[in-house]
Amino acid sequence: MAEKTKKIALLTGGGDCPGLNAVIRAVTKTAILQYGYEVIGYKFGYRGLYNNDFIPLTLDTVSGILHRGGTILHSSNKDNLFDYQVEENGKIIKKDVSDVAVENLKREGVDTLVVIGGDGTLTSARDFARKGVNVIGVPKTIDNDLLATDVTFGFNTAIDIATEALDRLQTTAASHHRVMLLEVMGRNAGWIALEAGIAGSANVILLPEIPYDINKIVDKIRQREALGKEYSIIVVAEGAKPKNGEVVVSKIVEDSPDPIRLGGIAHKLADDLEKLIKNHEVRATVLGHLQRGGNTSTYDRILSTRYGVKAVELIHEGKFGNMVCLKGDTTSYVSLEDVIGQTKCVDPDGEIVQTAKKIGISFAE
Amino acid sequence: MAEKTKKIALLTGGGDCPGLNAVIRAVTKTAILQYGYEVIGYKFGYRGLYNNDFIPLTLDTVSGILHRGGTILHSSNKDNLFDYQVEENGKIIKKDVSDVAVENLKREGVDTLVVIGGDGTLTSARDFARKGVNVIGVPKTIDNDLLATDVTFGFNTAIDIATEALDRLQTTAASHHRVMLLEVMGRNAGWIALEAGIAGSANVILLPEIPYDINKIVDKIRQREALGKEYSIIVVAEGAKPKNGEVVVSKIVEDSPDPIRLGGIAHKLADDLEKLIKNHEVRATVLGHLQRGGNTSTYDRILSTRYGVKAVELIHEGKFGNMVCLKGDTTSYVSLEDVIGQTKCVDPDGEIVQTAKKIGISFAE
Amino acid sequence: MAEKTKKIALLTGGGDCPGLNAVIRAVTKTAILQYGYEVIGYKFGYRGLYNNDFIPLTLDTVSGILHRGGTILHSSNKDNLFDYQVEENGKIIKKDVSDVAVENLKREGVDTLVVIGGDGTLTSARDFARKGVNVIGVPKTIDNDLLATDVTFGFNTAIDIATEALDRLQTTAASHHRVMLLEVMGRNAGWIALEAGIAGSANVILLPEIPYDINKIVDKIRQREALGKEYSIIVVAEGAKPKNGEVVVSKIVEDSPDPIRLGGIAHKLADDLEKLIKNHEVRATVLGHLQRGGNTSTYDRILSTRYGVKAVELIHEGKFGNMVCLKGDTTSYVSLEDVIGQTKCVDPDGEIVQTAKKIGISFAE
Amino acid sequence: MAEKTKKIALLTGGGDCPGLNAVIRAVTKTAILQYGYEVIGYKFGYRGLYNNDFIPLTLDTVSGILHRGGTILHSSNKDNLFDYQVEENGKIIKKDVSDVAVENLKREGVDTLVVIGGDGTLTSARDFARKGVNVIGVPKTIDNDLLATDVTFGFNTAIDIATEALDRLQTTAASHHRVMLLEVMGRNAGWIALEAGIAGSANVILLPEIPYDINKIVDKIRQREALGKEYSIIVVAEGAKPKNGEVVVSKIVEDSPDPIRLGGIAHKLADDLEKLIKNHEVRATVLGHLQRGGNTSTYDRILSTRYGVKAVELIHEGKFGNMVCLKGDTTSYVSLEDVIGQTKCVDPDGEIVQTAKKIGISFAE
Repeated sequence: MAEKTKKIALLTGGGDCPGLNAVIRAVTKTAILQYGYEVIGYKFGYRGLYNNDFIPLTLDTVSGILHRGGTILHSSNKDNLFDYQVEENGKIIKKDVSDVAVENLKREGVDTLVVIGGDGTLTSARDFARKGVNVIGVPKTIDNDLLATDVTFGFNTAIDIATEALDRLQTTAASHHRVMLLEVMGRNAGWIALEAGIAGSANVILLPEIPYDINKIVDKIRQREALGKEYSIIVVAEGAKPKNGEVVVSKIVEDSPDPIRLGGIAHKLADDLEKLIKNHEVRATVLGHLQRGGNTSTYDRILSTRYGVKAVELIHEGKFGNMVCLKGDTTSYVSLEDVIGQTKCVDPDGEIVQTAKKIGISFAE
Repeated sequence: MAEKTKKIALLTGGGDCPGLNAVIRAVTKTAILQYGYEVIGYKFGYRGLYNNDFIPLTLDTVSGILHRGGTILHSSNKDNLFDYQVEENGKIIKKDVSDVAVENLKREGVDTLVVIGGDGTLTSARDFARKGVNVIGVPKTIDNDLLATDVTFGFNTAIDIATEALDRLQTTAASHHRVMLLEVMGRNAGWIALEAGIAGSANVILLPEIPYDINKIVDKIRQREALGKEYSIIVVAEGAKPKNGEVVVSKIVEDSPDPIRLGGIAHKLADDLEKLIKNHEVRATVLGHLQRGGNTSTYDRILSTRYGVKAVELIHEGKFGNMVCLKGDTTSYVSLEDVIGQTKCVDPDGEIVQTAKKIGISFAE
Repeated sequence: MAEKTKKIALLTGGGDCPGLNAVIRAVTKTAILQYGYEVIGYKFGYRGLYNNDFIPLTLDTVSGILHRGGTILHSSNKDNLFDYQVEENGKIIKKDVSDVAVENLKREGVDTLVVIGGDGTLTSARDFARKGVNVIGVPKTIDNDLLATDVTFGFNTAIDIATEALDRLQTTAASHHRVMLLEVMGRNAGWIALEAGIAGSANVILLPEIPYDINKIVDKIRQREALGKEYSIIVVAEGAKPKNGEVVVSKIVEDSPDPIRLGGIAHKLADDLEKLIKNHEVRATVLGHLQRGGNTSTYDRILSTRYGVKAVELIHEGKFGNMVCLKGDTTSYVSLEDVIGQTKCVDPDGEIVQTAKKIGISFAE
Repeated sequence: MAEKTKKIALLTGGGDCPGLNAVIRAVTKTAILQYGYEVIGYKFGYRGLYNNDFIPLTLDTVSGILHRGGTILHSSNKDNLFDYQVEENGKIIKKDVSDVAVENLKREGVDTLVVIGGDGTLTSARDFARKGVNVIGVPKTIDNDLLATDVTFGFNTAIDIATEALDRLQTTAASHHRVMLLEVMGRNAGWIALEAGIAGSANVILLPEIPYDINKIVDKIRQREALGKEYSIIVVAEGAKPKNGEVVVSKIVEDSPDPIRLGGIAHKLADDLEKLIKNHEVRATVLGHLQRGGNTSTYDRILSTRYGVKAVELIHEGKFGNMVCLKGDTTSYVSLEDVIGQTKCVDPDGEIVQTAKKIGISFAE
């Protein structure tokens, strides 16, 4: 079966994430060196597949990209070929153009499509699998919120950057007796806030999974004062929510078409906290795009390489319709049918949250 | 003369800045090891001097602080003892309490006051000098905008951090064909934006000193597209202004008591640019407090150490009323009377701006 | 049972390792904040236990040490109280002084001894457990070569540093068409060389577990030349051995009382390679002590914190005689009786080695 | 005059150095964007000029190289075309082949040769200028030991790396009460050791310019012990020499054809010190090639860019036969005739050494 696979096509979908290039490199090197497959890469995710816009991927193409953030194949965020925006008869409509994609793959002689992306991208991958395309998925979520795998690449790089930011805020907070907030990624799952908070010595961590009571934040600040610690560090996931049902979204955010650009929660929270604790200045910093880019961490380079090699192994073994994953210390795979929409949220009773609590970190419950 | 100097008091004023601890350490070590002086440090700048709130500074106190950002003496931003807010008869009034400070210095037997701070802090230092206090100033401005010295500490660390941020934004911008803006410090002088822009390979740099025309930014983005570069990086100083007189401050900023917390200019500019260039997403990141904290760079550790040693040398030589400075490769000093209010702005015709232009960076003039 | 535990003593043994301070901090914070235990720390490992040389560990003592390499309790490398060098009647003899240690623990009212260390240190911990002391072990090996746990702290920091070193050597190698060797730690297990080699884009990895044939290294260099890559990067574990039985130790190393100081293998190999491949210069760098020190990585800060918290949990639950470990994503424990001497070597047929081979890395077999 | 210059050729000579690529980029961008010149780059320094082995340098060629160490043009260490090793009649002889180079330049229509290199490379540049070639020199020495310019690029990156290494050694030294030596570059001038020693909080600095007395090192270690500091950090330039005339080169080094590979001085000194101070272990680390590679620091990116732009300005103005330099804060130029062999050594009575002494650093005089 696998003998028939002669040409692999790769695409990356969704937001960029450190490790994408490492996967592209590992797939390409393994395919060429190990099995003599040909490899091409579609540009800008599914959009490139629709437009048949691709480049050949050779050993030269992937040379020197292991450590680089971003994706040499480019990516687009929203393109779903099963519900794609096209112009027809002068009108903008949405329609299923997946047959065009399948046609393109056939015309180019592509045997297997390797799709690297998050939940949305992988949903389409599953749908292509259902249409009979040989598909292998590689999970990509910087938030580490995928149930089907223990760890996703990009996450370690993101917590490295967030932790370094917290290290920097510590000295300013201590010098000025300030309360400093850092807003990090995490709309639905607070893994980055949780792990960076532990590593960066935060005093309060606010997660989407544990609604917060602002008065409990004040309590923690007061407790620290009582111990002679006249400053506090708070790390807040962008999706953190107040406890009392009502999500107090600041006006600033409501005006904006794109909340992430304003970092609503941290600025709003800083305003509110400053009113409650009059003896400290409160300052907010939104890490934003700095979490996604730059060089890929050692850990993520290795993990991504393993994912890429495993993807080609699955092709070689003819195990299509699956997604690569990591279980314990071993790469494995799971059916694309089983992974869609399965989010791994932080368990408030789980070991990591309990570890944080035991060393005195408050979740402001 | 110098033989009479037996006790030095130190204070740090204004915003924290990498290198403050290195100065404190160098002053303390040189004073103790070289001349046998005693050293104390007032806490929270002039406020501590007013409250006579100090700690002894010994070799142990300053051990291990060379590389650490912030200030072990803490700092406060606005306290001016010549116009100080006090409560009298149940009313909050402002009055000159500098005599209290002078009295405190006398009571503690302090011969010389070493003041590390920016323009405001040094203005008070000059005023204390005028009152007869032996004062030595050490300049501190992360913006590097002091005319009396070639370089100030903290600046190198700040451009390191801003450059690293630009390196990170590059990969995301390239992957998604985006325009990415980074807002850095610099209300009146754009040195950080200028030098980080050159080092971080920015395509457009916006400075307070060179009012920008937003259409020229668009032109630059279009020129890059024509060369196949479908993304651009813009670094913008927080004090950058549009050319056509009218400062278009976004509503967001007007609502806020503290513009720096919202990073008005970058977000506003991103909104405006996105309307003008419809084929690219535009994203803004505000570096904010991340520029001030964390570890001090190698360059700044050395410069701060030289400043601290020089301050004690001036005390030893009885050269009071002066501020330490760097001229070429040599530390020197200049009268506090001559330095106040002398800002060193970026010269639009100077070598650095011209260098940037010659390698193709646009200032959107 | 656990209610009786009121006082914990901590000690760190063996070579320093990033994460030790994080464990000390987590044990101390959890013990005090969570259970109200008292905590003391013996200095210089078992030597301090013998001399009853300790310091109290309070929240203040462990403040600010999370990220710092080394150990605030200091460590010593070789002291075994069951076979300890003492002076008696003017003679240096070795004897079992473990009773003195037990006596000291009793006198200080210590209920549980937490021992953080490697195989040697943990062997003594087991022996104290056999004598009836309540002991909890925390594994420490920068080489990650402990069978009883999936990962040990310090390892991630070490591969970060080694990978950064490889990144640096790449540019010089490419500029001068050189072969560059980097020698990293790993006498019996080659994990650091293996993982840093993958992350740092090495072309050849030499491990203790896979004896090498120098001619196969030359073959790899020649293959790369044929592809137009006129330089190569080799990472070599200090314990790497040639295939043909005879360990060709250079004269240099034989003269030395301490092989690690000379980095025998890399320099010897560079000499030998230069004779075999005349068209390239060959240069060796020994990473040595740079792998152990400095700041602890984000990953290791979190892992160490989890280990420290788990150690106190085990005390609370009265589960003495055990060592903390990580299995999958959960901390757990294993009897000290079962862990001694159980080395986890690199499996030449395991997934990581196979991953490296598939992307073209040679092990010079 | 300048109007005639239509084609520039670039070459890099000597050891690689962070900033070379930044100069290549700045020369290329300025030449093309500002003046419409054509640019080519000879490979492997003068060897490429002799073999007429070059590549065109375009905006694309120099894209993305600003931050990268090494040189995309490659370099060679020893090739002097005025005394070049060639084979003639089956014999290896040395002869002046500079006419071949001049001929190549003419044939390619090169108007100006830009030579980036150290003393040896620039000596040839001067000799080509004497032969009538339009030459511009750009100084390159990681050791910062060139009299004609205030600072050279690569130096800041090197002290960054050396300082980071010292930061790492600090934690191990303190944990184990060890004496740790770090050997850094500097055969004739000790600038790297001096500045990294100050920034990295070394206790002893050994320079080529200040012969050391090993007993004074021991004294310093003992003084620190008396203050409760049971460890010490020593940074030693590779060219450091003992005071008493006799250079005690270890046997290890004598056996070696290439002393730098063994880091003779630090290992020898460690051996000798361990014999003298029996209560501490002494360990040596040789930084070696790690100082040259990897990413270029912010400071060096800016300096190199300025040098590159200035080189093209000199071409435009027809000021041939000169070398770019930095004086104070301004780039300038100086005749190649005046710069050869003018080494800038550390002045033992200069401000930097005195600064180090005043904060308690020993030079073991």
